[in-house]
Amino acid sequence: MYRDRIRLDALQSKVMSAADAAGLIKDGMTVGMSGFTRAGEAKAVPHALAERAKQTPLQITLMTGASLGNDLDKQLTEAGVLARRMPFQVDSTLRKAINDGKVMFIDQHLSDTVEQLRNRQIKPVDLAVIECVAITEEGHLVLSTSVGNSASFAILAKEVIVEINLSQPLELEGLHDVYIPSYRPTRLPIPVLKSDTRIGSGAVKIDPAKIVGIVISNQPDSPSTVLPPDADTQAIADHLVDFFKNEVAEGRLTNSLMPLQAGIGTIANAVMCGLVDSPFENLTMYSEVLQDSTFDLFDAGKLEFASGSSMTLSAKKHAEVFSDFNRYKSRLVLRPQEISNHPEVIRRLGIIGINTALEFDLYGNVNSTHVCGTKMMNGIGGSGDFARNAHLAIFVTKSIAKGGAISSVVPMVSHVDHTEHDVDILVTEIGLADLRGLAPRERARAIIDNCVHPSYRAALNEYFEAACARGGHTPHILRGALQWHSNLEETGRMLAV
Amino acid sequence: MYRDRIRLDALQSKVMSAADAAGLIKDGMTVGMSGFTRAGEAKAVPHALAERAKQTPLQITLMTGASLGNDLDKQLTEAGVLARRMPFQVDSTLRKAINDGKVMFIDQHLSDTVEQLRNRQIKPVDLAVIECVAITEEGHLVLSTSVGNSASFAILAKEVIVEINLSQPLELEGLHDVYIPSYRPTRLPIPVLKSDTRIGSGAVKIDPAKIVGIVISNQPDSPSTVLPPDADTQAIADHLVDFFKNEVAEGRLTNSLMPLQAGIGTIANAVMCGLVDSPFENLTMYSEVLQDSTFDLFDAGKLEFASGSSMTLSAKKHAEVFSDFNRYKSRLVLRPQEISNHPEVIRRLGIIGINTALEFDLYGNVNSTHVCGTKMMNGIGGSGDFARNAHLAIFVTKSIAKGGAISSVVPMVSHVDHTEHDVDILVTEIGLADLRGLAPRERARAIIDNCVHPSYRAALNEYFEAACARGGHTPHILRGALQWHSNLEETGRMLAV
Repeated sequence: MYRDRIRLDALQSKVMSAADAAGLIKDGMTVGMSGFTRAGEAKAVPHALAERAKQTPLQITLMTGASLGNDLDKQLTEAGVLARRMPFQVDSTLRKAINDGKVMFIDQHLSDTVEQLRNRQIKPVDLAVIECVAITEEGHLVLSTSVGNSASFAILAKEVIVEINLSQPLELEGLHDVYIPSYRPTRLPIPVLKSDTRIGSGAVKIDPAKIVGIVISNQPDSPSTVLPPDADTQAIADHLVDFFKNEVAEGRLTNSLMPLQAGIGTIANAVMCGLVDSPFENLTMYSEVLQDSTFDLFDAGKLEFASGSSMTLSAKKHAEVFSDFNRYKSRLVLRPQEISNHPEVIRRLGIIGINTALEFDLYGNVNSTHVCGTKMMNGIGGSGDFARNAHLAIFVTKSIAKGGAISSVVPMVSHVDHTEHDVDILVTEIGLADLRGLAPRERARAIIDNCVHPSYRAALNEYFEAACARGGHTPHILRGALQWHSNLEETGRMLAV
Repeated sequence: MYRDRIRLDALQSKVMSAADAAGLIKDGMTVGMSGFTRAGEAKAVPHALAERAKQTPLQITLMTGASLGNDLDKQLTEAGVLARRMPFQVDSTLRKAINDGKVMFIDQHLSDTVEQLRNRQIKPVDLAVIECVAITEEGHLVLSTSVGNSASFAILAKEVIVEINLSQPLELEGLHDVYIPSYRPTRLPIPVLKSDTRIGSGAVKIDPAKIVGIVISNQPDSPSTVLPPDADTQAIADHLVDFFKNEVAEGRLTNSLMPLQAGIGTIANAVMCGLVDSPFENLTMYSEVLQDSTFDLFDAGKLEFASGSSMTLSAKKHAEVFSDFNRYKSRLVLRPQEISNHPEVIRRLGIIGINTALEFDLYGNVNSTHVCGTKMMNGIGGSGDFARNAHLAIFVTKSIAKGGAISSVVPMVSHVDHTEHDVDILVTEIGLADLRGLAPRERARAIIDNCVHPSYRAALNEYFEAACARGGHTPHILRGALQWHSNLEETGRMLAV
């Protein structure tokens, strides 16, 4: 059965129903599942697990690469399965449970999770559930549309359940580059020297005796939810293209820039789309998620190579790309997120990292995660992995939200994910602030003059000037520093109209 | 003249007075000077520059490795020489000028400065002033008690002034390992595989034609100002030793731990001293500054090798060490701070990083730099370089300051240098909180129960419980979050007695 997909005959006997496989998951286990930015997640087993838990309650610690699609986090939350969840999520039902204190969420740099597992600093993975397109004759795992943490989960877990997803094309085989850093104290350099360096194997090498169940599934990845560019995101892209042009003119970048990383989501995708009509050529990406814009750039002849950890596409782009996947395959690689996001490689290659801010402050500190300092949105994801070691750490956001009730530029951020030390460039649709080499008071000037929405500029100026009058390297008036956020919580607006 | 110190004859003609050398520094220049943690700074020329500026005002941008000794930052500040200063300082006069907004201070990760210079993201160094013990027959520079940023400053500057310091023993020659990463996009891995790997040259290779002046000086480094261990620092050390013992018992560390890094200062030094009477053996250090404790550990037979970027010793320890330096030399190396603090190497080796916090909050965010969110103390230094990529990121502090008027554990830190994502272990004299794998609400419990001074515990509990009642992943009450700091500013105490 499915001999093109399960090529080690001895494993044929392991094929079972999703319900039976879910039965192998016991209360209290730590389970590592595939899935990164809604791509390549195990689908049938977590769904069956949620169904089972409705009858027989159980709770687990669930680790993934990053976010799951197909409403799986919602189903698992509603069934009460999640005691602990790491390192990232994007589901509104789960988010509410996290903010209610019902699910313990551990928000981690995406490059960190398997390092902590390998060092036994967090609880070990008892069981891994990994979506694959095939199992090789050696019993090794050929992953699907994401690598994420799947390879390390499968290697470190005592038992592995494989979901063979027939909706994932076999052409994906050969796309992956699975490399696991050697153990300390004899770890060697990670030998990625360029975006296109391949350093590992095409499949995850595990002992096939660990495979305790194989489930056949046929459910596609959820399509990406990014919105098309609008006037504001186009303006952000235009400011950034102008900035890059100037960097080229000044001799700090060449016309092929440096390897690009773009965070998940509408704004970062739109910024990458903005490069389609730019003068830059022979671009490369060393990123975590490859979105529609990656393929737009290939089609426009702008992009030479893209390295990522997953592919998350809209339905339309997915159909286009997979109608002739071999057109792109030789210019793509998917890596473990530990490698796509590894500080060593990011610093070596000199990445241009473009990530989305929830809000940033006068001095360039960035909040990526917490609404009013308290409520989790999604998680820090890979933004910290990239920003800290990037050649250019760029954060983008629209200057206002909720029709102007919220300014994305505030006196003091209510939560810090990226400190001023790690932020080079801030961009809103209003303009771009280049913070490199500036002291805090100079940064504030650049940010107020370039990034703030006009309706908040006077108020921010007033705060800054009053704070400067009181002195300090990073002038603040503590009694007023979080006032805009308190106002928002209490009145629904940061400032009275 | 000084032919053992100036071995290239053609350079003999460059010997000049400090005043003449200082005359080569022009108004508006960017000057890179040697000096890291008060070790190996250029001494005669900056002093002469300050004297000259009293007559003929001028202003420069001054970059160093880190802090300078011999009151040089004080002299330069008082003479009005400093327009801009980076990346670190510890001088009270300069600190006041920074906090008054008179000197623009750019507080940077210590591994970052020369990366930004090399990429021309900050203004180039016009002139470098570098303390050396000798100039080789090739005209290359043999540095003294620190490497810091000296090698890159000398390589990147158009002109170089060398201070030959006769008080620095020639035995220092051979101690340094000067390695400069290759330029992107063809940069190679940094081949440090262990603390003792040597990858570079003993001297800084520059074209001797760039040497425009040589000044003979004879002034020693300032002695270190660390205080001896007291009951509180001993308690912190004891908690940490107990923690390490448990890590060994659990099989997460061996009896030689992992390479150790300790920040500058009394508490970190005391913690390292605490290892003298511990059961651990064959220790190694991969740190930035080597303090008295490093040599105490050598003398106790505990330490195999120490890698740093500088040596900063008390007067007594300095006399001991240099009375028989060859006893230690083969077990020491000094590297550029870009390499001692490099994220790539720190992650590869799996450093145990021990740094001092000014304050930390309920959720494990750490403030290393800003009093009440506004006034700069010293700078972030290397703490961020280490904490982000360490095997264990440990922050230590006494639980209270100013006789109890200040709690080092607060509801929300007034400034964030290290986010909760990057902080594993917090230690005060009260106890140790192990935050690994914990969600924010669990961290708060661990911190309140283990680290807070009893006189603040009830108030912190009250804040936390009230915040939890309002909900959120990281519960906060924004109107009260910085109240303790406002109280401190207004009344001199965080809470009324």
